[in-house]
Amino acid sequence: MPLVRYKITIQYHGADFLGWQYQHTGMTVQEILEKNLTILHRAPVAVWGSGRTDSGVHARAQCAHFDWASPLPAHKIVQSFNGMARPYRVAITHIEPTHDNFHARFDAKMRYYTYRLWHIPTPPIFEQDFVWHQPYPFSLSAMQAAGQLLVGHHDFSAFRAKDCQAQSPIKTMSACKISQNGNEIWFQFQARSFLYNQVRNMVGSLVDVGRGRTSVDQFQAIFESRNRALAGQCAPAQGLIFERVDY
Amino acid sequence: MPLVRYKITIQYHGADFLGWQYQHTGMTVQEILEKNLTILHRAPVAVWGSGRTDSGVHARAQCAHFDWASPLPAHKIVQSFNGMARPYRVAITHIEPTHDNFHARFDAKMRYYTYRLWHIPTPPIFEQDFVWHQPYPFSLSAMQAAGQLLVGHHDFSAFRAKDCQAQSPIKTMSACKISQNGNEIWFQFQARSFLYNQVRNMVGSLVDVGRGRTSVDQFQAIFESRNRALAGQCAPAQGLIFERVDY
Repeated sequence: MPLVRYKITIQYHGADFLGWQYQHTGMTVQEILEKNLTILHRAPVAVWGSGRTDSGVHARAQCAHFDWASPLPAHKIVQSFNGMARPYRVAITHIEPTHDNFHARFDAKMRYYTYRLWHIPTPPIFEQDFVWHQPYPFSLSAMQAAGQLLVGHHDFSAFRAKDCQAQSPIKTMSACKISQNGNEIWFQFQARSFLYNQVRNMVGSLVDVGRGRTSVDQFQAIFESRNRALAGQCAPAQGLIFERVDY
Repeated sequence: MPLVRYKITIQYHGADFLGWQYQHTGMTVQEILEKNLTILHRAPVAVWGSGRTDSGVHARAQCAHFDWASPLPAHKIVQSFNGMARPYRVAITHIEPTHDNFHARFDAKMRYYTYRLWHIPTPPIFEQDFVWHQPYPFSLSAMQAAGQLLVGHHDFSAFRAKDCQAQSPIKTMSACKISQNGNEIWFQFQARSFLYNQVRNMVGSLVDVGRGRTSVDQFQAIFESRNRALAGQCAPAQGLIFERVDY
């Protein structure tokens, strides 16, 4: 069989997984993909994701690639995997053959995340798995002003998890949009790449600004300090969704 | 204290409850309301709902009433109940004093239900709790034609659960709208009142029409037979949401 490299798009519910990467303590997205694709392929399949989402974080259109040398056609891979993965909420939503040098992680040009706050006193009933409940008065304009400070080429050490393995804390934030959407406040970020826990750490500190516990000037000082200990909490995982990645 | 009759609007996630009415085997919406309101009221509170949703059925804006003779103000009832009810996904979303003769069940003028089918091969990842996965080719126009036969004043015995306690199987269906919404097909019904399991039984038979297992003429014959045994399956509870009730 000739070898084919496939690019797949994957959707998953964060509550069902300990994140992307293999763990000894429970199911991960990488494990469920590799385990089932290996069964279908009848030989080991290594799956490379565009990035490693944390435990509990959702993905609407994560991307990955793998090499395939079996007569099973692409639509059968999708159909079989989507059945085998149950009851875990993960599905391949798209598959396409790609060129031999394509790499889901290194070829990514832009990544998009959304973080959702539930912003009314009534608790979220249908959206509980997808939001952080923050029923306090917020200054949207203060958060927007602070969010704009993040845009551009900066050292994001203040929002970097202790165990982040990235070589450099310097990243380029291409956009940060903060907006009210019905009962929710959405934080939408786009960058070529992110540090470990960066979005959740930024949201935790932006919420402090929104609630008036930190001024925009203080937020700027924290950001420039590059000191994680001065910044706010890491926002809970369930409010975060990895939206998509551009190549 | 003067007695006040309150009208409340309630939202709940069907997966957390064995329906509205008290059960020996698990938590119900009536029980969680009465138990916690009684604690706040320091005397028994009886809660009357607009109707009894089945186990697993969701509600966006269910209504109920109860009588209150305590100085605790309305907004505190809501705030306290919504905290006490956790981790069950139920919340009072609105409260207002009403007149002494108001009755949530008997004064209802119109009730609205929506049933959602997930209609693409990819399984529902974020919507799994709220849809019935039916990834088959459907004739929307055949279902719409069958749905129109339900509108009006009819004997709905063919879609009535065996243990329905209504005095009469004759109901007036005011509207039945069947439409495609992105990856979903929605069935929207409105009537002053419904029989037990009526919506789920109608949807089961409409799906048979959509899939071509029953023609529109056969659907009409089943409906006119008033014979539940001839009709299709009862569609699963999680796809159904009680939308609201008009007074």
